[in-house]
Amino acid sequence: MHIADKLIENIIQKRNPSVIGLDPDLDKIPQCYKNCLTNTGNPLEQVAELIYQYNRDIIDTIHMLVPAVKPQIAFYEKYGSYGILAFEKTVQYARSRDLIVIEDGKRNDIGNTANAYAQAHLGTVETLSGDRIPAFDVDFLTVSPFLGRDSITPFVDVCISCNKGIFVLVKTSNAGSGEIQDIKREDGLTVSQTLAGFVEEKAKQFVGANGYSSIGAVVGATYPEEARLLRERMPTSYFLVPGYGVQGGGAHDVVPCFNADGLGAIVNSSRGILYSHMSDDTRNSCTKEAYLRNVYHATKAMQEEIYSALKRSYPNMRY
Amino acid sequence: MHIADKLIENIIQKRNPSVIGLDPDLDKIPQCYKNCLTNTGNPLEQVAELIYQYNRDIIDTIHMLVPAVKPQIAFYEKYGSYGILAFEKTVQYARSRDLIVIEDGKRNDIGNTANAYAQAHLGTVETLSGDRIPAFDVDFLTVSPFLGRDSITPFVDVCISCNKGIFVLVKTSNAGSGEIQDIKREDGLTVSQTLAGFVEEKAKQFVGANGYSSIGAVVGATYPEEARLLRERMPTSYFLVPGYGVQGGGAHDVVPCFNADGLGAIVNSSRGILYSHMSDDTRNSCTKEAYLRNVYHATKAMQEEIYSALKRSYPNMRY
Repeated sequence: MHIADKLIENIIQKRNPSVIGLDPDLDKIPQCYKNCLTNTGNPLEQVAELIYQYNRDIIDTIHMLVPAVKPQIAFYEKYGSYGILAFEKTVQYARSRDLIVIEDGKRNDIGNTANAYAQAHLGTVETLSGDRIPAFDVDFLTVSPFLGRDSITPFVDVCISCNKGIFVLVKTSNAGSGEIQDIKREDGLTVSQTLAGFVEEKAKQFVGANGYSSIGAVVGATYPEEARLLRERMPTSYFLVPGYGVQGGGAHDVVPCFNADGLGAIVNSSRGILYSHMSDDTRNSCTKEAYLRNVYHATKAMQEEIYSALKRSYPNMRY
Repeated sequence: MHIADKLIENIIQKRNPSVIGLDPDLDKIPQCYKNCLTNTGNPLEQVAELIYQYNRDIIDTIHMLVPAVKPQIAFYEKYGSYGILAFEKTVQYARSRDLIVIEDGKRNDIGNTANAYAQAHLGTVETLSGDRIPAFDVDFLTVSPFLGRDSITPFVDVCISCNKGIFVLVKTSNAGSGEIQDIKREDGLTVSQTLAGFVEEKAKQFVGANGYSSIGAVVGATYPEEARLLRERMPTSYFLVPGYGVQGGGAHDVVPCFNADGLGAIVNSSRGILYSHMSDDTRNSCTKEAYLRNVYHATKAMQEEIYSALKRSYPNMRY
């Protein structure tokens, strides 16, 4: 099945177009997780093992509620090769729970290096025996477009040959995103709108049965007016929408990222689900069960908020 | 010593403002390296171990000639956590040989995620015991500016607190770089020139005894006219110059990236040094000694070409 259709199937089945960011932060992981680890061995390995145990619990808690998870690889790179091992195990565990895995890596480079990233994260790599095997094997990867269209093509090629997807940064959710992304060309198009043209052109090359492509775009929840314009420019592309919750975007703000079928976008929340529903003190004195119950309810509340907002705007949506 | 001064000291001592890219490519590593590995165990681990052995030989061959090496992390990510371990060991080995290590990762993200990348690659990370220790601990990291100034600040902060450096992508060497980077604002400045203003502003916050900052810029050898303008806009910033050799830039093309003191830039070559000086057939039938002798001579030839071109343009340069 086309990976965009698999994502859509998960979304419809769970009535939930949202994704939980797995951004483990040692300062914010509840104390109860830290108590049961022995304080011996390599200190980076210790934290990496803690992160994996924590992620397993989060995945077990939310896998019935959400279609996908989005590990942000920066939080794993912090612990070097041990952290990357925890990332790999997290990806495998999430996939074993039938979740789509969106790696937030914002990778890119030129030519053969872009191809190396694409093969590493989405495709297969050569071995000494001549076989090719997958390395990270995530379903989707976020990709930076700063180097131009020729840097995106190697990722698109791997997506098509390995049935994977990418989300190209088009309009990011941060306050300073406009400094580069809002610069206008002489013809009046912004950098973001120019990129939207690139992405839609690539998206059309790999469309699933539902009419959507897995060659998609990152479009922040914090700029709903811009999102409306970008939705029009990229009718085929799926959107990954950061900026919901802690960053300031609300359920109403994400609606323009969707089409009338209730599809076309998946909204991410990371800190809002993992940490900010409890005070630091409560999180550090509670049991795992109490903490995970809160994670479950925060995930459910996000689903209800987004689903209701969509249903109000698009009463005939597909789920 | 300020890391920019340490880089300059290495450059002056070796009379060589060039850097060798460590971009291991299994298809191009000579057959003699592959013959001595046992074909058992995890296939990704096998390749990663081969890469590390190969890198050690390259480093041993060139460390007297060059001030720095530039491992491109994409070629290590291909082999997952095993590849990252090979990357870490390569970084440590290069540093033990008194080489500056420039990690080409083109990382970035927003806010706390940018900080996670900065701490992972350049700074220190928290552990369970409360201590902070370094993870990758490279000297310089390449950084993507697409998300705006607020995404670069966390890297600058870590550079200042940990005496490290970054090279921000300003004008890349690939054919399609202009699609985004040459877009002109209403005031006539291109995206690259706008970024040059950001970089110079940050560079001034962290200047070494030689008058240069380790907050630098990536400026491709393939656009010498643009490089001249960018050199003027970023007098304090060090330039990392890709695009020399295989990509088409010659010794004459890199001169505008330098100042009259012969400093201000470091020119990279990867494939030109590692692979393209021998045919595929020769590389696959030669001994390690013969291969490494070619690497040595290619490195020396590059030094002589660049040094002569600089000396012709700047007879009073500092070395």
